[in-house]
Amino acid sequence: MSLARALGVGFTLGFAELTPEGRHFNTSILVGPDGTILGKYRKIHLPGHAENEPWRPFQHLEKYYFEKGDLGFPVFDGPFGKAAMCICNDRRWPETWRVLGLGGAELVTLGYNTPAHFPPAPEHDHLQNFHNELSVQAGCYQNGLWAVAVAKAGLEEGSRLIAGSVIVAPTGEIAARTLTDGDEVITAEVDLDRCAEIRQNIFNFAQHREPGDYAAITAPKA
Amino acid sequence: MSLARALGVGFTLGFAELTPEGRHFNTSILVGPDGTILGKYRKIHLPGHAENEPWRPFQHLEKYYFEKGDLGFPVFDGPFGKAAMCICNDRRWPETWRVLGLGGAELVTLGYNTPAHFPPAPEHDHLQNFHNELSVQAGCYQNGLWAVAVAKAGLEEGSRLIAGSVIVAPTGEIAARTLTDGDEVITAEVDLDRCAEIRQNIFNFAQHREPGDYAAITAPKA
Repeated sequence: MSLARALGVGFTLGFAELTPEGRHFNTSILVGPDGTILGKYRKIHLPGHAENEPWRPFQHLEKYYFEKGDLGFPVFDGPFGKAAMCICNDRRWPETWRVLGLGGAELVTLGYNTPAHFPPAPEHDHLQNFHNELSVQAGCYQNGLWAVAVAKAGLEEGSRLIAGSVIVAPTGEIAARTLTDGDEVITAEVDLDRCAEIRQNIFNFAQHREPGDYAAITAPKA
Repeated sequence: MSLARALGVGFTLGFAELTPEGRHFNTSILVGPDGTILGKYRKIHLPGHAENEPWRPFQHLEKYYFEKGDLGFPVFDGPFGKAAMCICNDRRWPETWRVLGLGGAELVTLGYNTPAHFPPAPEHDHLQNFHNELSVQAGCYQNGLWAVAVAKAGLEEGSRLIAGSVIVAPTGEIAARTLTDGDEVITAEVDLDRCAEIRQNIFNFAQHREPGDYAAITAPKA
């Protein structure tokens, strides 16, 4: 953080959090360009499974190692606008983006370590990058916000990751993307005022949402 | 319907409904291959505006002419599986797809008359087809269901429509699409068993949804 402060560069950092009470969360923080922590998020949509499943070529034990996040989907006031975070599997869920959009987020940063091979449905392995982009693009368009979606590249314990970082505009257009499956830096000019193009029109929530018809979405699971 | 029965062909039909009580809805029906009406849906997400706005090159008065649908987002048992409908602007809203997905829909049929020119944000006109496909593909993938999304082509009162019909698989992949902006018939083999590839894995709702964290989605509008 001292280096960030010296350079005037903000960032998002994901890590495995151990609380003083001994609890474990999959967590990320948003650090402003002055080095202060603007906010913290604990991952809500934990994928995978809670028990060892020997048939798998590798385990995906997020439900074993972590508790579900207990901070909701917070939105923070940054020096540039309203910012929020989600983590990896959260990006596939439209509820994540909608709660952040309703909270006024203009920029969502997220990271993901997504394996190229998905053992429960290997017939979808060739779709991993498509599903990544589809999820992020839809989330941005349907809520009129920017996303900076940062993938881990390379091998993780023998499992190849999809890479595929993207910066997506409130129109759902990809403003920048990585071109290889190795390490890369990409940049884009992120104009938060462009959120209004969507939010004041097709997705003007005050005018067009109908929450009275969405009860099934928050109904407890059977 | 008698012709449908004779041919053994089901269909969805959209129309302006006038009820015996004098109410107006933007409605569609689902007709089975035996000619029986399997279900009715009344459009919930009415776009546009409720008053004349003279600055527009054409009016978009759905909120003036129609009431919001009062049937929720129903799912029907068809002879082939569980079917549902939405209409036009409904497809842009992830809530539509999620409520239908939670209801068990395996096939969603919809129609849309979408103008190529969107007066409130003409800088997005070139994105109309992209936004159409993005919305339908995300809705299918995030709920593991098929969509048959049927566009009107040609001119409507001088306004060119986007055309762009698609049949989308539960993976979000486009199984068939029209190639021109004129009248076309497209077909695809729709295997409803493929819904399970998504619903039993990445979007296994019972395992992975967290409705306790979605309260903002059903909160009444401020």
